[in-house]
Amino acid sequence: MTRAVILVVGDELLSGDRRDRNGLWLAQRFAARGVHLLGLHVVGDDLDVLTRAVQAAAAEADLVVLSGGLGPTEDDMTREALAAAAGVELVHDEDAWQAIQDCLTSRDRVPGAAERRQALVPEGGRWLPNAVGVAPGLALEIAGARVFAFPGVPREWRSMIEAHVLGALESGVPAAEAVVWVAGVPEGEVARRLEGAASLAAVTTASYPHDGEVELRYRATGEDASARVAAAEAETRERLGADVFDPPEGGRIEHVVVRELAARGWRLASAESVTGGLIARMITRVPGATAVYPVGWITYATEQKTARVRVDEELIEAHGVVSAEVAAAMAEGARAEAGVDVAVATTGTAGPGPLYQRGRAPIPAGRVYVAMAMEGRATEVLELSLPHPREMVQRLASVRALDLVRRAIQSVEPGAR
Amino acid sequence: MTRAVILVVGDELLSGDRRDRNGLWLAQRFAARGVHLLGLHVVGDDLDVLTRAVQAAAAEADLVVLSGGLGPTEDDMTREALAAAAGVELVHDEDAWQAIQDCLTSRDRVPGAAERRQALVPEGGRWLPNAVGVAPGLALEIAGARVFAFPGVPREWRSMIEAHVLGALESGVPAAEAVVWVAGVPEGEVARRLEGAASLAAVTTASYPHDGEVELRYRATGEDASARVAAAEAETRERLGADVFDPPEGGRIEHVVVRELAARGWRLASAESVTGGLIARMITRVPGATAVYPVGWITYATEQKTARVRVDEELIEAHGVVSAEVAAAMAEGARAEAGVDVAVATTGTAGPGPLYQRGRAPIPAGRVYVAMAMEGRATEVLELSLPHPREMVQRLASVRALDLVRRAIQSVEPGAR
Repeated sequence: MTRAVILVVGDELLSGDRRDRNGLWLAQRFAARGVHLLGLHVVGDDLDVLTRAVQAAAAEADLVVLSGGLGPTEDDMTREALAAAAGVELVHDEDAWQAIQDCLTSRDRVPGAAERRQALVPEGGRWLPNAVGVAPGLALEIAGARVFAFPGVPREWRSMIEAHVLGALESGVPAAEAVVWVAGVPEGEVARRLEGAASLAAVTTASYPHDGEVELRYRATGEDASARVAAAEAETRERLGADVFDPPEGGRIEHVVVRELAARGWRLASAESVTGGLIARMITRVPGATAVYPVGWITYATEQKTARVRVDEELIEAHGVVSAEVAAAMAEGARAEAGVDVAVATTGTAGPGPLYQRGRAPIPAGRVYVAMAMEGRATEVLELSLPHPREMVQRLASVRALDLVRRAIQSVEPGAR
Repeated sequence: MTRAVILVVGDELLSGDRRDRNGLWLAQRFAARGVHLLGLHVVGDDLDVLTRAVQAAAAEADLVVLSGGLGPTEDDMTREALAAAAGVELVHDEDAWQAIQDCLTSRDRVPGAAERRQALVPEGGRWLPNAVGVAPGLALEIAGARVFAFPGVPREWRSMIEAHVLGALESGVPAAEAVVWVAGVPEGEVARRLEGAASLAAVTTASYPHDGEVELRYRATGEDASARVAAAEAETRERLGADVFDPPEGGRIEHVVVRELAARGWRLASAESVTGGLIARMITRVPGATAVYPVGWITYATEQKTARVRVDEELIEAHGVVSAEVAAAMAEGARAEAGVDVAVATTGTAGPGPLYQRGRAPIPAGRVYVAMAMEGRATEVLELSLPHPREMVQRLASVRALDLVRRAIQSVEPGAR
């Protein structure tokens, strides 16, 4: 198994203001290919520190990849550090210089002395072409390790990693990966329901909670990697049933709701109180939401629940505005008012602090009622107690609301009605 | 100046699935206090790799801080690595064990052999109390460097850093920092308007765009640090005028809108099309939004703009649904329908791809109209062209809309009406 170290170079990443993304991106790709990552190091533009970091990485890894520090200015130290770590000189490479000039000229820029520095290559190493930018990459061997350096501009970094690093890895050890998404069930409960699953013992498992959605990631390398990952995925799906949802690549629960509505030609409306527009925002971030989501209300003030989505004042008086009855009435009223197939509603108190109402017991922060009204089906209400900060309450409640809608829609086959 | 290295420990941070937050948090605090951070390293739960990383860090820094790997399981390697790096044994510390037992007992948990491992301290080092969790921290000296290790649970990490590390630093080199937030102006325009500002040359400046808000950060260390930072801040405020907004600690533009509405006893309504609920969501994430935001509409479908916020069908017919006229009518209609002081509205097309409507020229993705209607003031409309992906269009448009509201509100002194 390849042992790798990633070195990300740049003072701006050490002030805490700007977060490195390149290292994380490559770490994900290494993980999917069975590369064992020993460390992900961010170091400043300091020649000595960087040189020692390269030497230490080359001593313990087979593969070292550097991001950044290849620009034309004197602050850019990566070339010098690689040469120093290898104990060689930097030499001008005429082919690299030609490539740099061609790129600059094609962008109507005039190559100068500064850019000429980018054609310096450590003796014994080689430059690597950059299809989307000016700065060439570098490759050399240090202490038996393959060492690569690429520009830190994310577009250039990704393109060059794909061109020069990942291709070479793919011929190595077989590796496989599967992802299963779960909603409506806490992470601990997911773990409990997967306990003792034999197929999971044959893969590397990881479980990541994302504010109410749980991402299960299974990985294997070596013999039968694909078969073992497939078995783990199948057993998981069998045990978790309808709690599993299948978002499109890069998507989440809201993408599934929009897709399933569209597949049935149905439309959704929303009436939000405690979630304050977050459900609407999640739905409308999905391209194509226009076709399935005509209207939503944020009925944040109590009287607006009556004025906009037909909730009886007397019902509010009888049960309080944070109640299962009011949530159900909001969903039913929104469905009728909008004339749609499905409606979702929320009422609750996100905090901080409990909700005090005259003549009623205080309602603790995090108490939320989520309701779903659908044609030809009894209205459903969930009571949630979410002991979390305000925004997390809103987020968890929105995901549960969308998951309630997803389950109801998916219970009807497309074309069945 | 103190030279520091941060070591974050944990296999789960090397798979690319989970991002380290502790290191970034401490890096920010170091930057604000003038500590020179040499590196921020993420390493796995591997005794050899971690031991070498500690030794290398102690050799080049005065201060080394580790996050994580102090739990009760055999996977937790930080204690062992510290002892190995220092060349000493781990010894049981009875006081640490007592503190661990007290904490567990107070949580109705029974201390066992696993937890007893957490009372191991490298010989010559000392344990540090954890006010919010079980695992004690560790402090020792290695190769002349002060080395600290704290649990990786963010709440515990932050509490212990504040208790045991930052206090000791504050007596060092004087350092100062100021932050100025700007909205409604692109980052490039901010830079142009600050060009040649003499006071900025005497501080370290950084500019961070946050989806339509720009954060300017000024830092200085040494002689007159506070005075230099204050002068830079003052000159920035003078040059940028009303483009500067002053959010509360940790807040953004929506916090200012809610605060300024509350200060005047005013209420806001929203009618969103292209932003799909994001404006509502931003406002309602602010505690106290209830008092100033009674109602919002997502009038996503064209006919809903007529049905909900009184936009004339003929106006839509005449100008198209994505037009300045419709945005203005939505804001005015929402204000009248809700009976509030101010209303904000958006219409546009977020993409992907242009909007085609029968008998009209296609509207390019990213075209947005943002409108604000306020009592006693002419309705204002901004036309935006945002050549960005869908979610970024929605985000940038929402920030501009809230900034339009902020400027209008702030043009009236509290109590003036």
